Amino acid sequence: MANSFGELFRITTWGESHGGGVGVVIDGCPPQVPLTEADVQPDLDRRRPGQSSIVTPRQETDQAQILSGTFEGKTLGTPISIWVKNEDARPEAYSEMALKFRPSHADYTYQAKYGIRNWQGGGRASARETIGRVAAGAVARKILREQFGVQVMAYVSQVQQIKAQIDMATITAEQIEQNIVRCPDPNAARAMIELIESMRAKGDSVGGIVVGLARGVPPGWGEPVFDRLEADLGKAMLSLPASKGFEIGSGFGSIFMTGTEHNDAFRMENGKVRTLSNRSGGIQGGISNGETIYFRVAFKPVATVMHEQETVDVEYKNTTLKGRGRHDPCVLPRAVPVVEAMTALVLVDHALRHRAQCGRG
Amino acid sequence: MANSFGELFRITTWGESHGGGVGVVIDGCPPQVPLTEADVQPDLDRRRPGQSSIVTPRQETDQAQILSGTFEGKTLGTPISIWVKNEDARPEAYSEMALKFRPSHADYTYQAKYGIRNWQGGGRASARETIGRVAAGAVARKILREQFGVQVMAYVSQVQQIKAQIDMATITAEQIEQNIVRCPDPNAARAMIELIESMRAKGDSVGGIVVGLARGVPPGWGEPVFDRLEADLGKAMLSLPASKGFEIGSGFGSIFMTGTEHNDAFRMENGKVRTLSNRSGGIQGGISNGETIYFRVAFKPVATVMHEQETVDVEYKNTTLKGRGRHDPCVLPRAVPVVEAMTALVLVDHALRHRAQCGRG
Amino acid sequence: MANSFGELFRITTWGESHGGGVGVVIDGCPPQVPLTEADVQPDLDRRRPGQSSIVTPRQETDQAQILSGTFEGKTLGTPISIWVKNEDARPEAYSEMALKFRPSHADYTYQAKYGIRNWQGGGRASARETIGRVAAGAVARKILREQFGVQVMAYVSQVQQIKAQIDMATITAEQIEQNIVRCPDPNAARAMIELIESMRAKGDSVGGIVVGLARGVPPGWGEPVFDRLEADLGKAMLSLPASKGFEIGSGFGSIFMTGTEHNDAFRMENGKVRTLSNRSGGIQGGISNGETIYFRVAFKPVATVMHEQETVDVEYKNTTLKGRGRHDPCVLPRAVPVVEAMTALVLVDHALRHRAQCGRG
Amino acid sequence: MANSFGELFRITTWGESHGGGVGVVIDGCPPQVPLTEADVQPDLDRRRPGQSSIVTPRQETDQAQILSGTFEGKTLGTPISIWVKNEDARPEAYSEMALKFRPSHADYTYQAKYGIRNWQGGGRASARETIGRVAAGAVARKILREQFGVQVMAYVSQVQQIKAQIDMATITAEQIEQNIVRCPDPNAARAMIELIESMRAKGDSVGGIVVGLARGVPPGWGEPVFDRLEADLGKAMLSLPASKGFEIGSGFGSIFMTGTEHNDAFRMENGKVRTLSNRSGGIQGGISNGETIYFRVAFKPVATVMHEQETVDVEYKNTTLKGRGRHDPCVLPRAVPVVEAMTALVLVDHALRHRAQCGRG
Repeated sequence: MANSFGELFRITTWGESHGGGVGVVIDGCPPQVPLTEADVQPDLDRRRPGQSSIVTPRQETDQAQILSGTFEGKTLGTPISIWVKNEDARPEAYSEMALKFRPSHADYTYQAKYGIRNWQGGGRASARETIGRVAAGAVARKILREQFGVQVMAYVSQVQQIKAQIDMATITAEQIEQNIVRCPDPNAARAMIELIESMRAKGDSVGGIVVGLARGVPPGWGEPVFDRLEADLGKAMLSLPASKGFEIGSGFGSIFMTGTEHNDAFRMENGKVRTLSNRSGGIQGGISNGETIYFRVAFKPVATVMHEQETVDVEYKNTTLKGRGRHDPCVLPRAVPVVEAMTALVLVDHALRHRAQCGRG
Repeated sequence: MANSFGELFRITTWGESHGGGVGVVIDGCPPQVPLTEADVQPDLDRRRPGQSSIVTPRQETDQAQILSGTFEGKTLGTPISIWVKNEDARPEAYSEMALKFRPSHADYTYQAKYGIRNWQGGGRASARETIGRVAAGAVARKILREQFGVQVMAYVSQVQQIKAQIDMATITAEQIEQNIVRCPDPNAARAMIELIESMRAKGDSVGGIVVGLARGVPPGWGEPVFDRLEADLGKAMLSLPASKGFEIGSGFGSIFMTGTEHNDAFRMENGKVRTLSNRSGGIQGGISNGETIYFRVAFKPVATVMHEQETVDVEYKNTTLKGRGRHDPCVLPRAVPVVEAMTALVLVDHALRHRAQCGRG
Repeated sequence: MANSFGELFRITTWGESHGGGVGVVIDGCPPQVPLTEADVQPDLDRRRPGQSSIVTPRQETDQAQILSGTFEGKTLGTPISIWVKNEDARPEAYSEMALKFRPSHADYTYQAKYGIRNWQGGGRASARETIGRVAAGAVARKILREQFGVQVMAYVSQVQQIKAQIDMATITAEQIEQNIVRCPDPNAARAMIELIESMRAKGDSVGGIVVGLARGVPPGWGEPVFDRLEADLGKAMLSLPASKGFEIGSGFGSIFMTGTEHNDAFRMENGKVRTLSNRSGGIQGGISNGETIYFRVAFKPVATVMHEQETVDVEYKNTTLKGRGRHDPCVLPRAVPVVEAMTALVLVDHALRHRAQCGRG
Repeated sequence: MANSFGELFRITTWGESHGGGVGVVIDGCPPQVPLTEADVQPDLDRRRPGQSSIVTPRQETDQAQILSGTFEGKTLGTPISIWVKNEDARPEAYSEMALKFRPSHADYTYQAKYGIRNWQGGGRASARETIGRVAAGAVARKILREQFGVQVMAYVSQVQQIKAQIDMATITAEQIEQNIVRCPDPNAARAMIELIESMRAKGDSVGGIVVGLARGVPPGWGEPVFDRLEADLGKAMLSLPASKGFEIGSGFGSIFMTGTEHNDAFRMENGKVRTLSNRSGGIQGGISNGETIYFRVAFKPVATVMHEQETVDVEYKNTTLKGRGRHDPCVLPRAVPVVEAMTALVLVDHALRHRAQCGRG
């Protein structure tokens, strides 16, 4: 269904930008996993607005409450319901949105599809919906880390023209968190922050690239032919607001090599099958091969800008609209925990699917 | 499940490169659709090997047989089973594959996952699996065309460095079929064919980009939040053998624009909401907006090359392997009908889902 | 997934008897359906404990809160999250349940499956879980009534040996509600109440039969071969706590007739195909035929009794256990709204599925 | 989807009574299971028509062909496609069925739903569709037996008024096969055969009860709350042609006991938790408790009788219809392998689901 993701570790998210809150139900979580709100909150804090000068200033504490599925600090194997209240509701700030469709937002298409929309803050199409994903992803990451020895990370690798130089093999979560743009190359990070701040000053916005990676995934995860690991990762990323592209391993760059250049040679190393290069991005034939899984996600510049733009109103007449109020010049720093969450959700689901069919983790 | 795709128009493919054949079961097809093998065969012919000098010479006629689900030339609403026999079985040509893992193929990962593999011709990981997709896609395209007025097309837009100049608005299926590389820009096509032939001569291979598009999709198809239309299209494309990347609309290029530059302004035109530009690729908030849907898929160079490469054998010792026999220097011309098929499958599924929830096609 | 039900109108329930509450997320609800808590509360009130002298005295107001999916009193087409807080938490009342497995309850099997259980009040296995079903079912019933002209009802037809005489064709919701046992035959109802009260006095319990029915279902709902309408109704009913059997139409009684006696002859009546008898229970070949759908569900006597019973403790030693505290002598009156809810959920799901494939409601 | 069953061991059946054949695709089968046609054929032979004097005389050899998913006699983990050709096609025998709806068959409802039907031999609604189930069930039974030590059996326990006396604890597959009615009580079997033959002589038909059971299921299988083991078994059985009722354990009889009488006391026995009685039917709270799982399925008398009956024709006029040609006086003997197959499919699916979530078989 449209609001569920995953086959065996399945999440269902709910909630609009304004209303009773947003949340998630996790079905299929293994039992006996130690879990409290403290496991979930740090990633929510990394996702929440208002955390730094370069993201949207909306004020929300985004405190998670676990309503079910745990007992005495451990998961029961029953559905885990997590709820985050909406706090900073300012419906009056959106009154113009009630009457006009914002360009490159989902206002018009929701209206066209459903014949009705919650125009407050983007309703269901708001990035606020990703809170449920991040909360569930925190549970998934914990299981991956503790039960499967898998580490999931993401970072900002490019903002417009500014590219970071990063060694994927040694990067740590701490390095990613050391600056507000979540780019572990300090020089690039400085330039990125400067660029984003200039965009904010201009009332404009800018996009870029987030890299996601997973280390320690054993060979064998992934379910050909349709649920190839990269297909599910791609779907996960392309289901994020503002994402426009996904590439695994060598990605679009692969087309400039010949087959001979592109192939990853196999070699034995310490009794394990390894590849000398990793253009495959850790996945071959849709199944993990034991190398680091990595991919890139393109996020377009945020559609809300403070300039006047041509558009159409709800009575289907031409008009103009100028963004006002809270302005998010760059979605990337807050997209990082969301990319991590979705990566973890895909991986833990495939871990369970592999165990089901093949009898091993 | 791993071998099924779609929620309401659901296909299940089966079959290995060698064995009793390959096939597909379509569940959920609307009843009373006129359908015979003649509707399916043309797309299979466009996909089959041996159709031109620049694709793999494997000899298969790939004749489809509809075994169920139709009666007196019309669909019954019951499952449609389509079967294509394997003919050109030459297991002896693969004897070395029994003993060694081909680099950047799925041999090793299938072995690691399942502890067993059909090493003949790549088994389930063979591109031959896409026959079932193409057969089902032909049914989907027919329904889209006849019941919803939607046209689906794909073409080769780039081979390595050679880019085609194409006007997406006017391109026709005939133009795509006018040369063997399926690139509707005749000058680019000539250069592409030359490049591919030189690769074949060298025993090497080359990748490139296929563009997929759909015209006539009404506003309202797509199921946020997880089954956004671009997310399902992305998954569909990334589930294809050799695909490494997917981008919708402006894609990775979007990151070089500001929000103001990137936004698609709305305007009324003949009583319809239109956008002045189409960087959104026909999809906003995961839902079609009535503009042409278009996307790009990157295919890596085929992994089978005629050169000696380092690899590992099934006893986990280092060795080398040199490709022999049939050689496919470029997957792109045959990928075109597969991209069309998967696009059609995603769209018809979303058409039915939209009708289910919102009561209209 | 285990905690979701339905394909297109899909509910996911969550929550334990004790903890943050119980709830449901409805995904796939058509947009623009008028909906507020007032549509949901009446059925919850019919399900809640403490409503009469013959049901469990647990004190809960079971007030529903709609947290998402509606706007200005109408559904948005996005997930509807409904939450009911737990109030009457008395964990101390369950301390013995922490140490011993109650006979014919789910204590032991949950422990065996998950290695952990919330022993307070039965945890997830508590009948309290059905709150989410009833809330979602109220939405489903509303859609069926208003958009499809379908009426769903259930009533108690038998308690132990006491059978009601009821004319299924004319029965009304008001008649069902006219007594606390929800049996529309007043004489039988009186005897049933007397029997249940005598059971309560003895600290024992008693089971019986609930009949479910749906009037106005058009021909054509139901999805052979596996999702036959009676198969999905059967699954729905057998997923209820304490249910032990399900029969559609003539049911187990059919085996005493010959084919000639059992067949329902077709006749035209006012331009419609009708059957002269309705042993089929309104379903033939898994598809509704336009006649009243009816079925019977057997509920065993509640397992909690106030007598000492042999059992095993959590250290796997033999012991005895005597029920204490709140005692529910008969589950049937409160099962009625739950049977109605599940019936409605199955029917609305099939209505949408039929519309998706066949293009009509 | 309508023609798929199971979550992790998922089958998709296809095919009509007349046409290219019937078949099944199994997705999710564990790899490395020894499997050839010889594993599947015996159960198909037990299901096929013409096997004895008391079943339909249609002549089909029903030879299974495995088209994919195995290699050198073992499963690959890829989809297993099994095909059985239709042979005894006599469309002329059905010419009257083209024009008239047979009472209590699916002719009318298929027409009402799809606006089209294959009137030859019942089309998709033919019991011939169960071939795919039996073939897949044979694979499931093999896995249950060899990997989980679980034995699945079914037998005829009642034909009309004739009830068998059977000790469920000791019954063997050989005893079930020792007579053509598949009732392991020889005295009852004789009477049943006599009754069925008298029905055949009269051109009439008779129904009865099949008991299904599974021994050796470990505690822990079953997925509350919706996919309770008995709910999935019930759905499986109620999806069979001609089935009208299902009861688990004490079933409808439970309503005549009090809670005290009905409860199954727990006792330790050889270090295992056992129950002194088994009214629960081996399932508590939707999860297996280690005791024998057993249930009863009611099959109505076959609708095809050789007498003239009132009905309606395809132009919606009243008419009469008299059955002709092949006549099946009792479906029960052939239902036995189908009940076994569906039981095995449910159990193996739950075995894999339990392994996925809880990490153990």
